[in-house]
Amino acid sequence: MDLGTGLERYTERDWQTTTEGTVRLALIGLGWWTVDVAIPAIEDSDLCETTVLVSSSTEKAQNLADEHGAERGLTYDEYHDGVAADEYDAVYVGTPNAYHLEHVETAAALDKAVLCEKPLEATVERAEKLVAAAEEADIPLMTAYRMHTEPAVRRAKELVESGFIGEPLQVYGNNTQPVLEMIPDPDQWRLNPDVTGYGTSVMDLGIYPINTARFVLERDPVDASARMRSEHEAFADVPDEFASFTLTLEGGILLSCTASQNAQTDTHLKIIGTEGQLELSPAFHGEATLHVSKGSLRAEIEETDFEATEEMREEFDYFADRVLTGAEILPDGRHGLDDMRTIRAIYEAADRGETVEIDLENER
Amino acid sequence: MDLGTGLERYTERDWQTTTEGTVRLALIGLGWWTVDVAIPAIEDSDLCETTVLVSSSTEKAQNLADEHGAERGLTYDEYHDGVAADEYDAVYVGTPNAYHLEHVETAAALDKAVLCEKPLEATVERAEKLVAAAEEADIPLMTAYRMHTEPAVRRAKELVESGFIGEPLQVYGNNTQPVLEMIPDPDQWRLNPDVTGYGTSVMDLGIYPINTARFVLERDPVDASARMRSEHEAFADVPDEFASFTLTLEGGILLSCTASQNAQTDTHLKIIGTEGQLELSPAFHGEATLHVSKGSLRAEIEETDFEATEEMREEFDYFADRVLTGAEILPDGRHGLDDMRTIRAIYEAADRGETVEIDLENER
Repeated sequence: MDLGTGLERYTERDWQTTTEGTVRLALIGLGWWTVDVAIPAIEDSDLCETTVLVSSSTEKAQNLADEHGAERGLTYDEYHDGVAADEYDAVYVGTPNAYHLEHVETAAALDKAVLCEKPLEATVERAEKLVAAAEEADIPLMTAYRMHTEPAVRRAKELVESGFIGEPLQVYGNNTQPVLEMIPDPDQWRLNPDVTGYGTSVMDLGIYPINTARFVLERDPVDASARMRSEHEAFADVPDEFASFTLTLEGGILLSCTASQNAQTDTHLKIIGTEGQLELSPAFHGEATLHVSKGSLRAEIEETDFEATEEMREEFDYFADRVLTGAEILPDGRHGLDDMRTIRAIYEAADRGETVEIDLENER
Repeated sequence: MDLGTGLERYTERDWQTTTEGTVRLALIGLGWWTVDVAIPAIEDSDLCETTVLVSSSTEKAQNLADEHGAERGLTYDEYHDGVAADEYDAVYVGTPNAYHLEHVETAAALDKAVLCEKPLEATVERAEKLVAAAEEADIPLMTAYRMHTEPAVRRAKELVESGFIGEPLQVYGNNTQPVLEMIPDPDQWRLNPDVTGYGTSVMDLGIYPINTARFVLERDPVDASARMRSEHEAFADVPDEFASFTLTLEGGILLSCTASQNAQTDTHLKIIGTEGQLELSPAFHGEATLHVSKGSLRAEIEETDFEATEEMREEFDYFADRVLTGAEILPDGRHGLDDMRTIRAIYEAADRGETVEIDLENER
């Protein structure tokens, strides 16, 4: 039965091209996300193994390496010097935004594949250099959009492709979290424009609905409008404690988003079409639940064990699958660069108080 | 996409064999169900039309006929005399249980197709006569199990057939309602054994999980165990104000049910398999919602406009479809008779305090 088959393959890895082989990873930047989410995800993966951990201090790196059965702990300097380069095949760059470039440049020099966290860098210019470094060295480069391998998102994409909701018309996205409660430090890097880049809420959170809508709808943005404000003193150096922005996507679809680093956690993506509606709620940080409605039909589907760790496991295995077989990476460096250009336009639109055109085709 | 296709055809009439033609109906017995549910359902149907209403008084029948645009109001005597027999093609028997036989006998004599409410009659013996009358006259006879054309039930059946939940192991059913609140009359026919038959809660409510489980699982009962009690004085003449019964179905599946005419409304059918679980909750009186779970997957699907009227519309159109094309009727008279024999075994098991064998194959 179709419904049964559809549910049966809900978490099927329809992207998978191999189940053979192992990619040995060096993890660069040992913040809470790398330690609490990425390391367990890799342990749970089929095709990845953590062999090297890289951090600012030898002690921290080595202690975590011992704790998690990795072979080596290295400092950033040792990594840049190529120490133990034969002990890993690829690097995961999980450092603050403005340090991505240097780590990718080293990976390129060492001929290692790269999985780089999003946003790709702090600015468009630095992200362009990052992509150029990878392309010149001809290493695989993936931007770490874990929504691309999130089952609820993939099923939503297929429903849109099948015409289930008719023509998509309008999209609403939200991504908010209380970053000062999560990390009680007003001087954290996400609030420092030298490290985070253009700002914090759109760079770190708004990027989720932007990229997920692009992926699900296969439409790129053509212009941006935005409003932003910062009131809390910890947000004094960034413009977007609160942000609201609208992107016009190809074909005139409007993507209206809100994002804030100083609000209670909520993640949501809602796609309204001529005949039906899809909602991911929650959408972006694990436990994604797909709500479908069409006429008087209502369906709700969730995978209860799909937390952030499972999302990262799928992402790591997708990356490893591509590295092992050489198959195309969808969210590659240029795909991540498109979002950087879009985000720059959003900050520019907020700053100028007017709609800013985005011409990705020409900028590529 | 499979999931989309499955949802797309959620309410598809996969049973339909024609969209042409009209069956003109005489409705016999104008209680609240016929007036409030059946008449609007027929108005909403594709293949049915109400032309004649039959009741105890000419006045009641004619008033309702005028109100609902039917051609004629008749008394039961006039119906039995064949008055206006050329103005209808089929009859819907919605009278109390013990009057079904006489109305079906007349329909058989008049060569009219019959859709007869469940339970088929007050006792097995009378139900056997009813089926014999229809078979001797070679008229189509359907038992009015509207769960057979309820989309949620049909999709559940397909999920079981596809192996989605593995091997079905155990079933729980409940059907309760506060009949004295719904019809505030302690002398109502459902509490009178001369009219209702063996009892009230199993006859009127327990029949839902019994028949729906048979339909979904395609397994017949092989034995019955039961406990019953009546305490309220209005239930003095029937054994089952409260009933709990277990049927062993073919293959050893246990169907455990509760039913009561003196409890708050709740309807539920839960099928547990080796690999997953299906639940209809609510199950039997409109707004049926299908809950599916398998491993960590949870799905919930409902058709919000599927009230009792929509269920009856589907049932009437199914009946008309079969009458018009001569295609096989699944819940025919013999199918309804099987449930009468099962129900008799349940009352007998409660009375004797022991498990009673059911040998439908031999009794047929």
